[in-house]
Amino acid sequence: MHIDHIGIAVKDLEKATETYRKILNADPTKTEVVESEKVETIFFQTGESKVELLGGTSEDSVITKYVNKNGEGLHHVAFEVEDIKAELKRLAGEGFTILNEEPKKGADNKLVAFIHPKDNNGVLVELCQSISR
Amino acid sequence: MHIDHIGIAVKDLEKATETYRKILNADPTKTEVVESEKVETIFFQTGESKVELLGGTSEDSVITKYVNKNGEGLHHVAFEVEDIKAELKRLAGEGFTILNEEPKKGADNKLVAFIHPKDNNGVLVELCQSISR
Repeated sequence: MHIDHIGIAVKDLEKATETYRKILNADPTKTEVVESEKVETIFFQTGESKVELLGGTSEDSVITKYVNKNGEGLHHVAFEVEDIKAELKRLAGEGFTILNEEPKKGADNKLVAFIHPKDNNGVLVELCQSISR
Repeated sequence: MHIDHIGIAVKDLEKATETYRKILNADPTKTEVVESEKVETIFFQTGESKVELLGGTSEDSVITKYVNKNGEGLHHVAFEVEDIKAELKRLAGEGFTILNEEPKKGADNKLVAFIHPKDNNGVLVELCQSISR
């Protein structure tokens, strides 16, 4: 298990991309709209992990709502696992609240599922598995 | 540049350690008290990056204050750099607000410095450099 990415919720994706281009001293490696989530994502590769900027594409996007309520900032951390279904089963058995009974298709060609922040010291934890495997 | 660690501010370090032991399915690799910051840290290695749990050791610890104000959660992201002084100079030149003019000794045998969250979409960004280099 390793950190696949950290997700940062932002208001203005274009401005945020410029900011992180400067911080990371690198160009973004990938842009993707996840229609089902009403989210646009920009990825920067930093070592084996990525920094994912997340912008809502409509007012009812979960990210727009998050930013309106909490402001911009660190939104989630995602861990890449070999077998997401097995990990979800293991964590449900440990008493964690899994937000997606079935992993769903997320950005970056991954199956993803989330664990409720209430069980993880306020941290929204994502598990992901590359679909190509 | 890669993610050295993500820092998670918690109320009860012992309970949080048990939680992340389950999520990450691994034992913590290191414990350290940073007296100058009044912070106790627990590290889990996940690939090339670490998950750092941060607990305040007194009421006037910056972490205790943070948790009292904002609740538990993702606190900062740290990027390992080759030459922290050069990076700070570069980022100051780009207009970022550096919180430590001189890098200070942090946990995990590193020199560390922070960039103000107001410049980074609400994210407290840490730069760090291993002292042993």
